[in-house]
Amino acid sequence: MTQEAVERRQNGDTEGQIYLKALPLRGVEDIEKIKDDVSKNTIVIVRVTPLAERNVEELRKAVEELYRHVEKKGGDIARLGEERIVVTPPAVKIWRGLY
Amino acid sequence: MTQEAVERRQNGDTEGQIYLKALPLRGVEDIEKIKDDVSKNTIVIVRVTPLAERNVEELRKAVEELYRHVEKKGGDIARLGEERIVVTPPAVKIWRGLY
Repeated sequence: MTQEAVERRQNGDTEGQIYLKALPLRGVEDIEKIKDDVSKNTIVIVRVTPLAERNVEELRKAVEELYRHVEKKGGDIARLGEERIVVTPPAVKIWRGLY
Repeated sequence: MTQEAVERRQNGDTEGQIYLKALPLRGVEDIEKIKDDVSKNTIVIVRVTPLAERNVEELRKAVEELYRHVEKKGGDIARLGEERIVVTPPAVKIWRGLY
């Protein structure tokens, strides 16, 4: 990797590569990080239980905030079981067909 | 959408669009479907508990088969909590950094 590429990577620029990342949601302060990741072409699988166990109202607000972000920026969001939600950048659509 | 596009879609060709799909693993017979989805640029989040509860040895073989597939074709695979694994096509890398 060139020095320039190393610097770009350090700055969080993944050069079009799509990443998938799993993160816990501990508080509303994690929401900005998740929105930032999604803006950088990263799919984020968010485990909501840490915040759900601590403050349900705060969780509700955090999830609403993510829905608004996805609506505005494109991308998609869906529940994954009881403990997680998935947030995708515009390049990735969540398939809701039958199986 | 043109008639041709409709036919391509019916044939499972998603024309470069990346999809994300959540599926349960009920038996080894589901493995071919998952491999096929990944080959068509779909990220598959596989809930392994249905097979895990029924036959652990069959689950071990199924997961090995998916690892081999990903090794051969590119893409990535990782556990997601106790109940799921994520399988990605070559276009999507699983991020294993710290957070």
